[in-house]
Amino acid sequence: MATIMMVGAFDTKDVEYAFLREQILARGHEILAVNTGVMGECEAFAVDVDASEVAAAAGASLESLRAAGDRGAAMKAMGEGAAKVAERGYAEGRFDGIVGMGGSGGSSVVTAAMRALPVGVPKVCVSTVAAGDTGAYVGSKDVVLIPSIVDVAGVNRISRVIFTRAAGAICGMVEAEPASAGDDKPIVVASMFGNTTECVNACSEALSASGYEVLVFHATGTGGRTMESLIDEGLVDAVLDITTTEWADEVCGGVFSAGPERLSAAGRAGLPQLVVPGCVDMANFGGMDTVPQQYKDGTRLFYEWNPEVTLMRTNAEENVQMGRIFAEKLNAATGPVAVLIPLKGVSILDGDGELFCDREADHAFSAALKANLDEGILVREVDHNINDP
Amino acid sequence: MATIMMVGAFDTKDVEYAFLREQILARGHEILAVNTGVMGECEAFAVDVDASEVAAAAGASLESLRAAGDRGAAMKAMGEGAAKVAERGYAEGRFDGIVGMGGSGGSSVVTAAMRALPVGVPKVCVSTVAAGDTGAYVGSKDVVLIPSIVDVAGVNRISRVIFTRAAGAICGMVEAEPASAGDDKPIVVASMFGNTTECVNACSEALSASGYEVLVFHATGTGGRTMESLIDEGLVDAVLDITTTEWADEVCGGVFSAGPERLSAAGRAGLPQLVVPGCVDMANFGGMDTVPQQYKDGTRLFYEWNPEVTLMRTNAEENVQMGRIFAEKLNAATGPVAVLIPLKGVSILDGDGELFCDREADHAFSAALKANLDEGILVREVDHNINDP
Repeated sequence: MATIMMVGAFDTKDVEYAFLREQILARGHEILAVNTGVMGECEAFAVDVDASEVAAAAGASLESLRAAGDRGAAMKAMGEGAAKVAERGYAEGRFDGIVGMGGSGGSSVVTAAMRALPVGVPKVCVSTVAAGDTGAYVGSKDVVLIPSIVDVAGVNRISRVIFTRAAGAICGMVEAEPASAGDDKPIVVASMFGNTTECVNACSEALSASGYEVLVFHATGTGGRTMESLIDEGLVDAVLDITTTEWADEVCGGVFSAGPERLSAAGRAGLPQLVVPGCVDMANFGGMDTVPQQYKDGTRLFYEWNPEVTLMRTNAEENVQMGRIFAEKLNAATGPVAVLIPLKGVSILDGDGELFCDREADHAFSAALKANLDEGILVREVDHNINDP
Repeated sequence: MATIMMVGAFDTKDVEYAFLREQILARGHEILAVNTGVMGECEAFAVDVDASEVAAAAGASLESLRAAGDRGAAMKAMGEGAAKVAERGYAEGRFDGIVGMGGSGGSSVVTAAMRALPVGVPKVCVSTVAAGDTGAYVGSKDVVLIPSIVDVAGVNRISRVIFTRAAGAICGMVEAEPASAGDDKPIVVASMFGNTTECVNACSEALSASGYEVLVFHATGTGGRTMESLIDEGLVDAVLDITTTEWADEVCGGVFSAGPERLSAAGRAGLPQLVVPGCVDMANFGGMDTVPQQYKDGTRLFYEWNPEVTLMRTNAEENVQMGRIFAEKLNAATGPVAVLIPLKGVSILDGDGELFCDREADHAFSAALKANLDEGILVREVDHNINDP
């Protein structure tokens, strides 16, 4: 028997949650009910953590949220509160999995609680927004969205089926406890792009042969965030950050940014990390027509990687900025750090004679990095392209 | 004990699927294994439907797919074949739920099979693309994507947990058989937008009071497609198609198109349908900067509904086109059809004196509709706005 945290707006969706709750109880599991409904009370069943406690966990009060009448602000506060309640409750061993339901607003609150939990903890949210851009709801975690098909509003012929299957999913997931394999190898995470695949594959093979397990993440924003998130969860032993290109997107407003926290987790965790400025020569956009107007002044090089991805060569100024940021991030590291700089290009496209080959920009990066990096940190420049064997 | 169809590329992902299979068998369920892997054989376990059968179901041959060496074309054929195999197998009662795994290509094949099955049949796909735009994978069905966190490549410390939870999810879902409620009311589906909410709510209340169950769908493309899909599955008794705006997006290239099949299912199924050209005065785009260049000639009216949604007033020419399309769709209907045309505007914004008020465009629609509609079909024009009580 397991305990499942059921989180959601029990004031407006009490009928729906009462149905879900019955299905879970009928399978022999227990419920920890957390109410995030701002406006009213829950009449349908007993609540374990009421909405005022959730608001308080976010430093807000239910009364002030009600009085302010700002739906967006209230949702944000309840999401933050639910995340705190979930994180704390899980650390205290109070539940084994989490389930919730909602439209776009409700899903944002429920999944905020889910994203606060480690990978591997079962997380199921019935949602109206499962067929669309789920990035903000899922984040870098294993949040499972079940399409609600109809609105999460009432128990009808369709929703009854969906809610029952959702109860089955969360129950089945908590019942399927993963066996711990005693012989697990130390884990190395690595960042990759098509433009650095050769390099990463070669490293992976060498590390695997030496008894490590290598987990590779595509540097598409989600990939980098997931990698950093696993490091924060303590699942990782060393970091091979060969493709730090997400910083180019962060600096240039590209589509594959992993946010300003990228390149922080390994240092924070004190893990050994090898950092290479892989693919910082390129920022990513969608189709050519999505490239921001500001870059269409004729001074920029573009490459259509495929119809959906346009690469833009970063310039010297952006590389100086990245060099400084990398130095700042790595100076903050509490573990061993080494930087490797390939002098013949940081991607395939930046190789000698290739379209993005711009040694001035490359040099701008390394000069800014070296000028700002603490003395103890090893920087090694090698006279090769990043993918050279 | 249930049977779960396990579908995927067993040639390249045999280790991963063998692990998933073991977890499902350990819970006492059976596996119907369908191989969609084009390049090689499956050595790890017994296959029930092999890849050549899947290819044949799509009218292709495995040899020719291999010989052509076109990865995209092969994926497409195997997806079509898997959909056929799934549809046929489910109709024959050969399985109770479906599970698969993959990257973006693998997920497209696996979810093609899932989308061929009715809503309510458990569908679980472990996928690298669960945190992003899932629209094409989920479609209008209850396809459940489980984020793979790491690539679906090998059984490692992370993937072992994810795969185990996925096995738990599909097993729990097939075990949770929804109770059929004997007292189910006849189902009416209705299409809605913020701009027609008042109208739809009033209809819903009246229908509910008369003993119907009303399911409301937001006309955001997914909503209209889901509504049509439920009609095709035979779950619906009548159709209140009050918000046919998705055709404006289909005609103008907006973001909420439901494709050229919208407005077809009810007629095909012979269901009674009431059709209103709700919100055909507006096509939807994202933020103002996403509006296509062709519309920025100064002749168009725009309204920023919110920072993420820009509405564009449709013109007379587009309304003529829609009038003709509506006539064609309704002429093909095999059941009773009535059309209601509100002469004082088809949305709030199209009300007298409102920003989008353009009676010339409105008239262009109704004139084109009436000129092309078969004689037997009832058209009633009322001297009200769509939302008038």
